[in-house]
Amino acid sequence: MERADIAIIGTGPGGVSAALTAKVRNKNILLIGKKQMSDKVSKAHQIMNYPGLPAVTGADMAKAFEKQLAMMEINITDSRIGTVYAMGDYFAIQAGGEVLEAKSVILACGVVSGKTLPGEEEMLGRGVSYCATCDACFYKGKKVAVIGYGKDAEHEADFLAEVAAEILYFPMYQDVPGVSEQVTVIKERPKEIFGEKKAGGLRTEQGEYLVDGIFVLRDAVSPKQLVPGLELDGNHVKVNLSMETNIPGLFACGDITGTPYQYIKAAGQGNVAALSAVAYLDAKKREAGKQ
Amino acid sequence: MERADIAIIGTGPGGVSAALTAKVRNKNILLIGKKQMSDKVSKAHQIMNYPGLPAVTGADMAKAFEKQLAMMEINITDSRIGTVYAMGDYFAIQAGGEVLEAKSVILACGVVSGKTLPGEEEMLGRGVSYCATCDACFYKGKKVAVIGYGKDAEHEADFLAEVAAEILYFPMYQDVPGVSEQVTVIKERPKEIFGEKKAGGLRTEQGEYLVDGIFVLRDAVSPKQLVPGLELDGNHVKVNLSMETNIPGLFACGDITGTPYQYIKAAGQGNVAALSAVAYLDAKKREAGKQ
Ligand SMILES: Cc1cc2nc3c(=O)[nH]c(=O)nc-3n(C[C@H](O)[C@H](O)[C@H](O)COP(=O)(O)OP(=O)(O)OC[C@H]3O[C@@H](n4cnc5c(N)ncnc54)[C@H](O)[C@@H]3O)c2cc1C
Ligand SMILES: Cc1cc2nc3c(=O)[nH]c(=O)nc-3n(C[C@H](O)[C@H](O)[C@H](O)COP(=O)(O)OP(=O)(O)OC[C@H]3O[C@@H](n4cnc5c(N)ncnc54)[C@H](O)[C@@H]3O)c2cc1C
Repeated sequence: MERADIAIIGTGPGGVSAALTAKVRNKNILLIGKKQMSDKVSKAHQIMNYPGLPAVTGADMAKAFEKQLAMMEINITDSRIGTVYAMGDYFAIQAGGEVLEAKSVILACGVVSGKTLPGEEEMLGRGVSYCATCDACFYKGKKVAVIGYGKDAEHEADFLAEVAAEILYFPMYQDVPGVSEQVTVIKERPKEIFGEKKAGGLRTEQGEYLVDGIFVLRDAVSPKQLVPGLELDGNHVKVNLSMETNIPGLFACGDITGTPYQYIKAAGQGNVAALSAVAYLDAKKREAGKQ
Repeated sequence: MERADIAIIGTGPGGVSAALTAKVRNKNILLIGKKQMSDKVSKAHQIMNYPGLPAVTGADMAKAFEKQLAMMEINITDSRIGTVYAMGDYFAIQAGGEVLEAKSVILACGVVSGKTLPGEEEMLGRGVSYCATCDACFYKGKKVAVIGYGKDAEHEADFLAEVAAEILYFPMYQDVPGVSEQVTVIKERPKEIFGEKKAGGLRTEQGEYLVDGIFVLRDAVSPKQLVPGLELDGNHVKVNLSMETNIPGLFACGDITGTPYQYIKAAGQGNVAALSAVAYLDAKKREAGKQ
């Protein structure tokens, strides 16, 4: 697979804006995320403060974005990114089973809604995982719990069921989940992940469940988890006015960079991030030309 | 006149975005600028990278902005701001003949296109002026030159003709200017402003014109000129990620804060500036409540 100039992770207003500007600047891009756009776009009721789209519904905004991407011949790679590794000269992007490559990356993956569970961050990588595709192999024949924050997580639970012996599925949303028969749905609210050196179980308001591993599948992962070595400012990615992070070639935009959480802000920052990525690529090219 | 919560100067995407968000947050706002929107909006050919408005023409974007402002019951105060004075507790805004007041201000006035003339900055305030309404009174019965960068400047030349004895008008644009009979139009390109301690004349490619004062009327004034005490970064207003300037209660967004010069970036920053102004006002209110 060809190495892209710019990989953009996230299909909210930040990612869409970055993709449009990068494309206008003739870059070879990879736009990765949900084909139906960010839930925060497509499911919004009505938006009163997006200049140019008076009192637009989220569904209409999503439609406008889709039309515009199609017009600019930008495809969405429907995938979930596990980790982004800065390899010095390029980035290796773990997308489900495959590894994508890009010369620069723009993080536009929004924020995790809701707090982490007690025990979750402490035991991350030690029985707690955010990526079924990445870590399922460790749970062959074992019993695992999956906390799903959106319907997307159902596919991952089903996939885990092909590998693990027993799956307990805790849906954190209203709709009745459409998981396969091998998955046991438990409609209880997880309160805590417990264990000594390793996660050993899940406590809910109603009881306790002993498991070998726990998958917490939110719509977005913590940026700390996403890119090793990334400098944060609280829970957000630290950026400057050019949307540069501490890692050369890595940029960020939108909610992931901090408050305010707003559509038009995300779109504006996406534009700046794309132009900074273009400038980064151009400078690299000039350098290479000199040698 | 009532003191506004937030005065927003400029009707480009930055100012329009700030106005929409401030209004959504129930603030009493003053949006000051051209009623027909920024020329950079209304006169643009086609814009390919504004998310939500695929391949939009500038005219259509301006129409969408106008419709949205009307829907939100936001009026434009059609005026040109001379200077903004930070008075500690509020801002005094010199708008033509009158002085407007606001508790906070957002600068969204874009950038001056084109370089300043040799001698211009050196003699600013000493025979060189950027505001006819503000300084005409100093030239009663005298001879002045007006360098007009847009058709707007014609009204100011006409106004000067009511006060000064003789007006030489140098149009920097194509259309034949519709100035009054008292104004002499000279189609030559000014090259330099000369003088000893004070501006004494204007040099063009064709000749020299001795005058008592020179008005340079661009679409936007230098931010240094606009707000005394404002900290700059090169020719731009220095801001942080919250769009705060060095002056409490004063915010900036769009081209005036630096490159890239882009519609969607200006709109995004306008949103952030408005929310920062709202936070500033709320903090002030809480402080006042405590005393
Ligand atoms: C209920 C609600 C109402 C709101 N109302 C308003 C409003 O009126 N006005 C306003 O301006 N804002 C509003 N917002 C905020 C607005 O939704 C966000 O600010 C905006 O969507 C942020 O855009 P973004 O591009 O940064 O991220 P998002 O829109 O969150 O998009 C991020 C995308 O990245 C994807 N992603 C995350 N991690 C990964 C990964 N590892 N791999 C692949 N893809 C990934 C996500 O699935 C998502 O599609 C509202 C938000 C909510 C929740
Ligand atoms: C030829 C051209 C093509 C462009 N093409 C693109 C493009 O394809 N895509 C893109 O994203 N960007 C493009 N841009 C850039 C874009 O036009 C600007 O980035 C954008 O308009 C900036 O918005 P703004 O709100 O900061 O300021 P502006 O749009 O410049 O608006 C500033 C407003 O403030 C007013 N103002 C200034 N001073 C005062 C004062 N003292 N008192 C009252 N009002 C005042 C001005 O009259 C103006 O109405 C283009 C620019 C040009 C010149």
